[in-house]
Amino acid sequence: MKTSMATVCISGTLADKLHACAEAGFDGVEIFEPDLLAAPESPEEIAALAARLGLTLDLYQPMRDVEGVDEDAFRAVLRRAEAKFRLMNRLGIDLVLCCSNVATATVDDDAVSADQLRRLGDLAAGYGIRIAFEALAWGRFIDDYRRAWRVVELADHPAVGVCLDSFHILSRRHDPAAIADIPGEKIFFVQLADAPRLSMDVLSWSRHHRLFPGEGDFDLADFTARIVDAGYSGPWSLEVFNDTFRQTDARRTARHARRSLRWLEDAVSRTLTDAPGGLQMLPDSAAPSAVDFVEIKAEDTSAVEELLGQLGFTPRGRHRTKPVTLWTAGRARVVLNEQHARGWEPRLAAIGLEVDDAEAVDLRMLELHVPRAYRRTYATEERLDGAVAPDGTEVYWAQAADEGEPGWVAEFEHGGPEAPTAIEGVDHVSLSQPWQAIEEATLFYTAGFALRVDSSTEVPGPQGLVASRVLGSPGGEVRLPLNVAPPILAGERAALPQHVAFRCADVRALARAARERGFVPLAMPGNYYDDIAARFDLPTEAVAELRELHLGYDQDAAGTYLHFYTRTIGEVFLEFVERGGSYAGYGAGTAPVRLSAQGRR
Amino acid sequence: MKTSMATVCISGTLADKLHACAEAGFDGVEIFEPDLLAAPESPEEIAALAARLGLTLDLYQPMRDVEGVDEDAFRAVLRRAEAKFRLMNRLGIDLVLCCSNVATATVDDDAVSADQLRRLGDLAAGYGIRIAFEALAWGRFIDDYRRAWRVVELADHPAVGVCLDSFHILSRRHDPAAIADIPGEKIFFVQLADAPRLSMDVLSWSRHHRLFPGEGDFDLADFTARIVDAGYSGPWSLEVFNDTFRQTDARRTARHARRSLRWLEDAVSRTLTDAPGGLQMLPDSAAPSAVDFVEIKAEDTSAVEELLGQLGFTPRGRHRTKPVTLWTAGRARVVLNEQHARGWEPRLAAIGLEVDDAEAVDLRMLELHVPRAYRRTYATEERLDGAVAPDGTEVYWAQAADEGEPGWVAEFEHGGPEAPTAIEGVDHVSLSQPWQAIEEATLFYTAGFALRVDSSTEVPGPQGLVASRVLGSPGGEVRLPLNVAPPILAGERAALPQHVAFRCADVRALARAARERGFVPLAMPGNYYDDIAARFDLPTEAVAELRELHLGYDQDAAGTYLHFYTRTIGEVFLEFVERGGSYAGYGAGTAPVRLSAQGRR
Repeated sequence: MKTSMATVCISGTLADKLHACAEAGFDGVEIFEPDLLAAPESPEEIAALAARLGLTLDLYQPMRDVEGVDEDAFRAVLRRAEAKFRLMNRLGIDLVLCCSNVATATVDDDAVSADQLRRLGDLAAGYGIRIAFEALAWGRFIDDYRRAWRVVELADHPAVGVCLDSFHILSRRHDPAAIADIPGEKIFFVQLADAPRLSMDVLSWSRHHRLFPGEGDFDLADFTARIVDAGYSGPWSLEVFNDTFRQTDARRTARHARRSLRWLEDAVSRTLTDAPGGLQMLPDSAAPSAVDFVEIKAEDTSAVEELLGQLGFTPRGRHRTKPVTLWTAGRARVVLNEQHARGWEPRLAAIGLEVDDAEAVDLRMLELHVPRAYRRTYATEERLDGAVAPDGTEVYWAQAADEGEPGWVAEFEHGGPEAPTAIEGVDHVSLSQPWQAIEEATLFYTAGFALRVDSSTEVPGPQGLVASRVLGSPGGEVRLPLNVAPPILAGERAALPQHVAFRCADVRALARAARERGFVPLAMPGNYYDDIAARFDLPTEAVAELRELHLGYDQDAAGTYLHFYTRTIGEVFLEFVERGGSYAGYGAGTAPVRLSAQGRR
Repeated sequence: MKTSMATVCISGTLADKLHACAEAGFDGVEIFEPDLLAAPESPEEIAALAARLGLTLDLYQPMRDVEGVDEDAFRAVLRRAEAKFRLMNRLGIDLVLCCSNVATATVDDDAVSADQLRRLGDLAAGYGIRIAFEALAWGRFIDDYRRAWRVVELADHPAVGVCLDSFHILSRRHDPAAIADIPGEKIFFVQLADAPRLSMDVLSWSRHHRLFPGEGDFDLADFTARIVDAGYSGPWSLEVFNDTFRQTDARRTARHARRSLRWLEDAVSRTLTDAPGGLQMLPDSAAPSAVDFVEIKAEDTSAVEELLGQLGFTPRGRHRTKPVTLWTAGRARVVLNEQHARGWEPRLAAIGLEVDDAEAVDLRMLELHVPRAYRRTYATEERLDGAVAPDGTEVYWAQAADEGEPGWVAEFEHGGPEAPTAIEGVDHVSLSQPWQAIEEATLFYTAGFALRVDSSTEVPGPQGLVASRVLGSPGGEVRLPLNVAPPILAGERAALPQHVAFRCADVRALARAARERGFVPLAMPGNYYDDIAARFDLPTEAVAELRELHLGYDQDAAGTYLHFYTRTIGEVFLEFVERGGSYAGYGAGTAPVRLSAQGRR
């Protein structure tokens, strides 16, 4: 499988873009005309740079409004096209994207469009160039790939074929089944983009909200498999217009883009019963079965230790070779790390996940070119494999222990045995994301760890809406809500603190016991409890107890959610939750109140 | 006219919001329930704070899903409602907004909804409370204000009336004519929001993109006039959900909001032939007839002077009492100001506009509560009236001179008479805006100066899309493109430099003459000229001349645009343009190339 990407997908100058694509491991690029126009380099220099970087120049795009016009207008088209064909010869590109007419079409007639494409094909052939004709979703007359193919079939010229773009086809919900009717050798090019299902005009949707494969709602595996099945063997090329990607670092976006194609290759291999030899699946791995540990890092972690002690965690000792301590409660393990943290306030630095096949995850990360996390490990210590998530959090994985505690716990010395506790384990870990990292983070967790997107929501905070997307394992053993702060706050590191929620058998008893040890919960306002009394049919004493203990409460048809928060220390806070029935949410009704209370700290 | 605003419109805690609304001059507020829930103050404290600030509490909102349900569900509604009515008594609020059922409606029957509203009205009346029923645009069964009124009419209860919300009515393009069928005393409340016409699902549109009156595409003057005509005399209340306003400073947004209601009052007064006594027009004023001057400020303006000299401007001397110099060319006047600018790189600090009635503009600005700009003025100098635009630019206005130069030019001494020049005047001034200021800036120029929105577009730059909205006078004498940088750059002051474009009779001659005086234009890439040759049917020599002089070129059906740019100095650059025919644009095709070239500086 040959990979390519349109230069419009990433930021910077054309030369920057070529370097970024080459570094990320793409085989080629599509040259987006405005990028060339703005470049100071001549076409020959661009061709030479691409050659040196080992990139093929697969396509020149776009040429607009070439068919469905009257003869006068078509003469101007031929004049313009010839100038561009000469330019393409200088670039050494032999394929041009012509999209269906939007602006100047006056003739709604397949025969006329076919005739004009045929004559354009004749001209192109003289320059050794072929034409890939694409139906734009908002084309004036031709807005459906099936009609574009009909016109190309009518044109019946060896230099004229179609370009299939997943966005234009799937956004309009056109049935991709008819791809099977197109001979593979007449599919000259394929452009791939995912997108969230949005109800908005398709042009704005296309211009601003496309995503890389695996991050949106389109079934790209099915779409691409149909094209492979039809016999297409050209590049899989990304054409993703997205406001975020255009603003972020080109090298980073290119790596992210390349990773999405690796994910797609895997998905297509699994879709096809008879995948061509070049396509490779990723190693199989199931979703993680538990959170192994969470790590909080700071120059001085004492304030966190005090809190953990009040909440019934047991200090299990200091690591043999590092200034790191371990606190546990049930299956919840909190690592406090004071190494290389000068000047840091407490922050969530890493999480560990238990997996059924650590080697498979390792290979997946390798195939996906995810940057690795490094931990110094001595011969007598367990090796820890990890990757750096897009937001900088280190995510480690380890084989799930058959029973009891994982082996690495024995590396901690001078601690006592665990005291009895109502805490059972980690319920969820909320990771606040920089706004430009949320899509990349989604792919990191889905492709790398086989987590899936459970739900998306928006929570109003005092400074704007917080967008939240929950990644989880199918059984709910691992839940990672990813939160994005409003743009105005997104630049501030601790604008949205991260938090770890622990699951307990009896959160009321835990709250009372903690209070006796001096714990002060995040204070919830009285009006919140008046509202609980109005909304839910609870006994007066039950509401009074919630109020007394500063507990949050939610219920839905599936069950109940009872929880409280600690204050924020540095950039992190803790939550303790009790789930009743099969309640699967996160107390969304309480979150705005919590955000306000935290704003008052 | 009594003014009000929902607390959801602005950021911060409930107490912050009350302070901000009071300072901005609102008469009252609607209490948005989630704001109360998150507040640490008791309802009695909130009531007392509002009383001290002189704010009435006009409405409690929203109460959801109260009608169209089965009897079991309705019993739960009554229980919930009674708890909220008790809360409202504690707040001292006697009006509650009930919106049409979205989530729990099972009965699509006006008689059932009316019966339930009647029984709710009975309960409310016992607490001295009235119910304003509103049709949400996305209500399950009731999604049209005409049906909401039918149900209220059927309910026939003194404590039950309607709430009319401009967004829910105008977003669905429901004809507002039927407002005339509702007796004024049954319109219990009115909520106002403007919005851009967007093709997206109405719920997302409503939640994220509402605007204050005068900033969107709705005809709010007509809508509000109909309500006044129907006999409504309650508050005009703003309910604007908008991601930007929720993130910006509450005091600033509140002032901006209050200003939009003053604009609306004027527009309604002009719409009604027989406006009630309380409504006041703003003083009449025509749009500005010219740019009087532009002012560039820096610790050292020498680099700008050198450039102006090369481009044929004449130094007209130093100001009598300030370290300020004047350069002119035709009707273009550039003031260079070195006062109180320590450490500043050159930036566009002020513009002056010529108006036909300076006193009227002065009064409008006063009525709109726009912050004023201050200039020290001695007895022998002309007084300069100005306001501070939302982006911080000072905008001055002065009576247009009958003929010749304005009087203030005589305050500059030791300069010579103006040399002959091809420059005629200022063509346009591009003001880059922080992303959170663009809406407020639009209202500032339309309400304050009677400019109008001419066009909106997006220009791709190397770091993302630049949104551009052009404000202009009807005859095109004054044109102010407002540009918004992509969010990632928006925090950097000079991310998008500001620029002044000067109109010339012969831009080729100007470019040649400037070159002879040592001027070096912003370099345009060769590929740009290859594209011009391909796109336009120009003689080879003409393209060669463009290339030689680094001129940009555009043409449309109306005419041609020929122009060149200077390099950027500090935060500002200059452009020189020649318009052929009645070309009304700004060379949008060249802008991306220019943005790239500037990125290379």
